[in-house]
Amino acid sequence: MVIVVRGELRLTAGKAAVQVAHAAVLLAQEAAKRAPEAFRAWSATGQKKIALVAPTLEALETLARQARGLGLLWVLVEDAGFTEVPPGTKTCLGIGPAAASQLDPITGSLPLL
Amino acid sequence: MVIVVRGELRLTAGKAAVQVAHAAVLLAQEAAKRAPEAFRAWSATGQKKIALVAPTLEALETLARQARGLGLLWVLVEDAGFTEVPPGTKTCLGIGPAAASQLDPITGSLPLL
Repeated sequence: MVIVVRGELRLTAGKAAVQVAHAAVLLAQEAAKRAPEAFRAWSATGQKKIALVAPTLEALETLARQARGLGLLWVLVEDAGFTEVPPGTKTCLGIGPAAASQLDPITGSLPLL
Repeated sequence: MVIVVRGELRLTAGKAAVQVAHAAVLLAQEAAKRAPEAFRAWSATGQKKIALVAPTLEALETLARQARGLGLLWVLVEDAGFTEVPPGTKTCLGIGPAAASQLDPITGSLPLL
């Protein structure tokens, strides 16, 4: 599972951590229902997660389209907006869980958060 | 749900985010099984998460004992240790999901991550 944070928002470490956690929980719930095999494989190998960063919302939307094209689960997290960003701001994109070989072509060149 | 990161490890923002996400997913899974009412209430109100920081492992263990004493779910996350910290390092403590009125007496005085 990779989670790509929207760099232009310049979130604090704590705010970014919560957004990444939102994405991880939503993807885990979705995978348990819709991709049970990928979910089991991910659970059996330590529920690996990687946090990356991309500059803009447009970059996240491009990544989401690529994930959809490959049949991967993805979620674009909207923040409730109590702090730091206005309500409904899209803060990060989660993709997976999936094998590294499926995720690398999409997110392999992005820097770590 | 609150997640308390172990400050003395001085994790990068990305590493801390992944540890917080580990705690959130583990707690959500545990709550769905063992505390379905708290889980439903949390899910229906946007799956709120707060990331805090405490200085040491001893501080996290004290908080875990307090959570246990109040009958709250908690998880102490151990990192697989591929980067930044040795394998098995305890990186953060998640508590909940639970009402703010239950969590505040334990973690209400800790600073945000």
